[in-house]
Amino acid sequence: MGQPMSAAKKVLFSRIALIGIGLIGSSLARVVRRDGLAEHISVATRSKETLKKAKALKLADSYSLDPAEAVRDADLVMLATPLGAYGDVAKAMAPGLKPGAIVSDVGSCKESVFRDVGPHLPKGVHLVPGHPVAGTEHSGPEAGFAELFDGRWCVLTPAREADAEAVDKVAELWRRAGMMIERMDARHHDQVLALTSHLPHLIAYTIVGTATDLGDALKREVFKYSAGGFRDFTRIAASDPVMWRDIFLKNKDEVLDVLGRFTEDLTALQRAIRRGEGDKLEKHFTRTRAIRRGVIEAKQD
Amino acid sequence: MGQPMSAAKKVLFSRIALIGIGLIGSSLARVVRRDGLAEHISVATRSKETLKKAKALKLADSYSLDPAEAVRDADLVMLATPLGAYGDVAKAMAPGLKPGAIVSDVGSCKESVFRDVGPHLPKGVHLVPGHPVAGTEHSGPEAGFAELFDGRWCVLTPAREADAEAVDKVAELWRRAGMMIERMDARHHDQVLALTSHLPHLIAYTIVGTATDLGDALKREVFKYSAGGFRDFTRIAASDPVMWRDIFLKNKDEVLDVLGRFTEDLTALQRAIRRGEGDKLEKHFTRTRAIRRGVIEAKQD
Repeated sequence: MGQPMSAAKKVLFSRIALIGIGLIGSSLARVVRRDGLAEHISVATRSKETLKKAKALKLADSYSLDPAEAVRDADLVMLATPLGAYGDVAKAMAPGLKPGAIVSDVGSCKESVFRDVGPHLPKGVHLVPGHPVAGTEHSGPEAGFAELFDGRWCVLTPAREADAEAVDKVAELWRRAGMMIERMDARHHDQVLALTSHLPHLIAYTIVGTATDLGDALKREVFKYSAGGFRDFTRIAASDPVMWRDIFLKNKDEVLDVLGRFTEDLTALQRAIRRGEGDKLEKHFTRTRAIRRGVIEAKQD
Repeated sequence: MGQPMSAAKKVLFSRIALIGIGLIGSSLARVVRRDGLAEHISVATRSKETLKKAKALKLADSYSLDPAEAVRDADLVMLATPLGAYGDVAKAMAPGLKPGAIVSDVGSCKESVFRDVGPHLPKGVHLVPGHPVAGTEHSGPEAGFAELFDGRWCVLTPAREADAEAVDKVAELWRRAGMMIERMDARHHDQVLALTSHLPHLIAYTIVGTATDLGDALKREVFKYSAGGFRDFTRIAASDPVMWRDIFLKNKDEVLDVLGRFTEDLTALQRAIRRGEGDKLEKHFTRTRAIRRGVIEAKQD
């Protein structure tokens, strides 16, 4: 945009601490490295094995198994563990946080961040929960890549009274990663994502599970003829089991609510099939086709 | 394989009649043209508009709105209309069929072909139902392309006593289109496809329908954040409404059966979420991950 290259490479944070270095954490580390967005990246993981992988991939400048050590002097702490670990991590890292530090995260539900992390943070530390809506079915530090976030949306859900400068800095980080930013109420985020992400995953996990209960011969056939629709579900149902376990537990109410609506709608279609009501089916399938156009127009195809 | 080019281009049929020229029919027409597999392609459609499109695309050598005219002198008649039209088409074309002609089809369920088409065929005409398991969410003659079938499976479900030569000729046609061939009992086909294709489509239609009932503001958000899983469902739910209406009506029993098993499994996961049973969820999600490997190993990814 007419700016010199050095402006695009401007350091945003002197020190970023990444707690967890799976698909999302390691992709962010790669962005920060590529664009020189921090002078120092520190990484903490719970497992020694993951830390070793991160080291081998040279994703950070310092490595630790202790969250409090990793966050020391960090301007930005980014939680990128499964949601179920947030409470313990927040408690463990709290003594190391410096005043004015920003704590953010990448989790797929946001109300639980206020519940699990908020109470542990010292006064003067800014909580800016976020959710980069991007991913693949692969997991672990070796699965990450800097382009993962390109052209996708990042939702930030800070409290209304949150520090504006802190929110701006987190927004700018994700913008540099190629994302478009939206600010939203945490509860509203959890409702929207329950439908667009959590329910699809639950359904895919279910239908693929239904297939795993088949005998071996039938199962081999299911693999062979998966091009008819099933294989798209298997990709979704290959996502990280622990991450998804935690999402369903943490966004329980919204997931159960949207699941209830889904079940009602499925029952109606089931009845139409049983009764041979072709008109009803065709009408439904014609409506859903229009939704696809909406997704394509929103450039999320 | 050491054969001269002319062998690969050998004519298989002197005259092929395609009844219906949507995604599958027009893709097959393109294969037949590309590889010179027939001396003459005739096409019949129910709608004038589709016939006009097929003409404009030069997909055939002759065009008709009358199935009996289109099938005259054909060695192979390929039904490629929605399943619900098979009965009427079979009745209408029967007077035009020559003795020894082969009647095949491309429909997604196969028991109904015996019910709907079989009784109308004159003695000496061979019925070889088939299902090329390939497709996209697009429909119509302009959506077809010759490579659609490459590397996918084609299931043939002729009766046990079917003419072996007729079965071989249909198999060879699909082989030339790049497909791998499997012979199967029609009922068994319908069971396997109910799970790998019909149920995934029903689910996708349902979940996308659940979203269409939302208010406009929320709907726009669903589009925006669809990258989290939902967009894969919208692609599936954009498939041809009439084709899918007919599949669910024609394969009703198998679809309802597999839907019953799916609903049981979904209810179990729902209960695990409600009760906060993380172990159960994680165990389930770990099992489904293994299925993805099965699909990749079957090269249907």
